[in-house]
Amino acid sequence: MKLRNIKLTIEYDGSAFNGWQIQTKKERTIQDEVKKALSKITGQSITVFGSGRTDSGVHALGQVANFKTSSHLTTEQLLRALNANLPEDIAVSKVEEAPAGFHAQYKAKSKTYRYTILNRLARTAQMRSLCMLYPYRLNLRVMKKEAKVLIGRKDFKSFCASDPERYGEGKESTIRTIKRLTIKKSGDYILVDIEADGFLYKMVRNIMGTLLAVGSGQLKPGATAKILKAKDRTQAPKTSSAKGLCLLEVKY
Amino acid sequence: MKLRNIKLTIEYDGSAFNGWQIQTKKERTIQDEVKKALSKITGQSITVFGSGRTDSGVHALGQVANFKTSSHLTTEQLLRALNANLPEDIAVSKVEEAPAGFHAQYKAKSKTYRYTILNRLARTAQMRSLCMLYPYRLNLRVMKKEAKVLIGRKDFKSFCASDPERYGEGKESTIRTIKRLTIKKSGDYILVDIEADGFLYKMVRNIMGTLLAVGSGQLKPGATAKILKAKDRTQAPKTSSAKGLCLLEVKY
Repeated sequence: MKLRNIKLTIEYDGSAFNGWQIQTKKERTIQDEVKKALSKITGQSITVFGSGRTDSGVHALGQVANFKTSSHLTTEQLLRALNANLPEDIAVSKVEEAPAGFHAQYKAKSKTYRYTILNRLARTAQMRSLCMLYPYRLNLRVMKKEAKVLIGRKDFKSFCASDPERYGEGKESTIRTIKRLTIKKSGDYILVDIEADGFLYKMVRNIMGTLLAVGSGQLKPGATAKILKAKDRTQAPKTSSAKGLCLLEVKY
Repeated sequence: MKLRNIKLTIEYDGSAFNGWQIQTKKERTIQDEVKKALSKITGQSITVFGSGRTDSGVHALGQVANFKTSSHLTTEQLLRALNANLPEDIAVSKVEEAPAGFHAQYKAKSKTYRYTILNRLARTAQMRSLCMLYPYRLNLRVMKKEAKVLIGRKDFKSFCASDPERYGEGKESTIRTIKRLTIKKSGDYILVDIEADGFLYKMVRNIMGTLLAVGSGQLKPGATAKILKAKDRTQAPKTSSAKGLCLLEVKY
């Protein structure tokens, strides 16, 4: 019997999750919740393939996953059933039939992450789980100029977390292509969007940490180019908090 | 000793509160939390005057309150101390010195409430506490036309909750002035803003219930005018849920 391949677009508030990926320990993960809901709805044991893991506390508006099933439920029935069975901090916004060869991870062409930064003294109550409070003055003009040196095909070794198992000598390449890096102001919020063909472990958070260090004056303008050129993880400033980080979109 | 009069602008996520106003029962209210935080910070017993109560579950971005104190803390010190001492679902966005005669309730010239309605089949995870899911088709053109008959100085008796203690024969007037009523689409969201010189009990929720009934086709176009004219509470359709309702602004 030919199995259908179903593509899901998933939104979540990552605050209460230990990230996307199913853990061996009994921790709460998004992948596990989606797998449980689908298995219950279809009566089958379902394997869920995500576009990639998101860290503990990271949100998503457009995480993409796929799964194979022989279920006859329509895509609208699956959408309704998923939203009825998933916990309130996960929602499925789209369910689509996908070609047999579609794979959420291997077929991804780019991912876009957004950092939502509240740049004022007073914290927020309503958006508290969705943004990072940064109460110090930021020079957006300098940040935008710094960001430009990161755009394009570069070796981002300086911005990837130390993980010699994966990115040590002779291991996986640390070259990636940032297609877009924009910094926009929206009221008291600053939105930093980074689109790349792939991200190294903690790359977004290390880039954000560097841009904040330059924007706040802790580092001098030009520091980003120097850090990038060093290809040395110890050169980049503190990794930024996962608070306010959201996987906006995956393109195929 | 002359007391200072301090004006606060307060934001809250009303989900876990039994409304603004201090209750005799031991229920969690915003007014009580602000009073406790201020009393702790100033070492004085503080009375907090709000612009008005908000119902259980209703949010605020711009609730206004005032209090008298002999404290010498600057407004910035008060802002920092309040945000450090209040629970995470309440934040103070502004602290200002006010003239001695300022009173958050009696001096208010208008209030603006916003209903945030998510008008699609799929629910949301990230905004779940801040909006009302309305998964049925709505005719915004018809809703905007209906809304027009509510603007101006009118008797809103049909839209106020039955409360003979307050609005019975010979009691308080049910005449109010709606200064603005706008309906805007923003992505999958519909934002309904209502500004008035004052609101009767549950008036916003009853107006929203009526606009949704006409927008979804349960009531015929023209129903709003008829209900308004009837001056009879039993004529209006179901009160809308408090979900998605937020006190945006109080003007003085």
